[in-house]
Amino acid sequence: MELFETIFSRRSYRGMYKDTPVPREDLKKIMEAALAAPSGCNKQTTSVIAVDDPAIMKELTALIADRPGFASAPAGIFILTEKKIAYRDRTFYIHDYSAAIENALLAVQALGYESCWVEGHITDADRIGRKMADILGVPENIELVCYLPIGLAAEEGTHVRKQPFEERAWFNGYRK
Amino acid sequence: MELFETIFSRRSYRGMYKDTPVPREDLKKIMEAALAAPSGCNKQTTSVIAVDDPAIMKELTALIADRPGFASAPAGIFILTEKKIAYRDRTFYIHDYSAAIENALLAVQALGYESCWVEGHITDADRIGRKMADILGVPENIELVCYLPIGLAAEEGTHVRKQPFEERAWFNGYRK
Repeated sequence: MELFETIFSRRSYRGMYKDTPVPREDLKKIMEAALAAPSGCNKQTTSVIAVDDPAIMKELTALIADRPGFASAPAGIFILTEKKIAYRDRTFYIHDYSAAIENALLAVQALGYESCWVEGHITDADRIGRKMADILGVPENIELVCYLPIGLAAEEGTHVRKQPFEERAWFNGYRK
Repeated sequence: MELFETIFSRRSYRGMYKDTPVPREDLKKIMEAALAAPSGCNKQTTSVIAVDDPAIMKELTALIADRPGFASAPAGIFILTEKKIAYRDRTFYIHDYSAAIENALLAVQALGYESCWVEGHITDADRIGRKMADILGVPENIELVCYLPIGLAAEEGTHVRKQPFEERAWFNGYRK
């Protein structure tokens, strides 16, 4: 799929998924896309775990049963981050994993699947991300910050409304 | 350009740029790609200014004269963020602009230009980003966090080395 077509057609999907399995080669392509993103000072703070084992997916998605759409995906990619110092006292791990996630979401779109950036819900005070990390054997110094459900849409998705270009983009000066 | 080809061929360019101007339609395409990225709770915290006016570029890049490569670009895109609350006490503006920047970098690659995510250098203690923002008339409540030089390469670029897939990606468990 062509880059701009992919970028402009991507959307966040919050509906139910079909139970059709996602071939491992597709999951691998999505993971490779994620890891190809740049990272601050090339610290490569992001790593990823894809889950396609139905029993493990069931255990993980039981933690987000209040979101039946996200919980219904046959596969998922879990984004891990290590809060490494890039230089002096500065870290860029949020930047790093966000760029990786965007690449992953574009790869998902190009391969014909649906996904959504599920982060706020799993990194909140109830620490669902940590519970997921424990199931996956992720050590304490590494945080699981995002779940990307992966699969085929079982229903129609929706598009959010965005502000027009003129409200967010200008040439040679602010609001020019 | 095909998505995966774009993702896997993108690299950060730190060399000198040719002075060939960048057509405004290309800058606009890059900005549109940036703004098509998702944002936490659809808060759309990111906005962008493209600069192609040589006098303004000269004034802005004089602030980063210690990086002659970045300072030599004929055009630039400047990433702005507003630290809006997404919900309760949570913000996702770093995530938002990082996903937007990744989209912009892919657009740059697909259009045959070079760029680099220049953030740490302009958001450091000497606040170059704020000086750039002042030149562009950006109000105090909005931060200029990143400069993307845009132009054609005048010299060979380099690729950083990345860890192999097996060191950063696994199936169904950590390091599995």
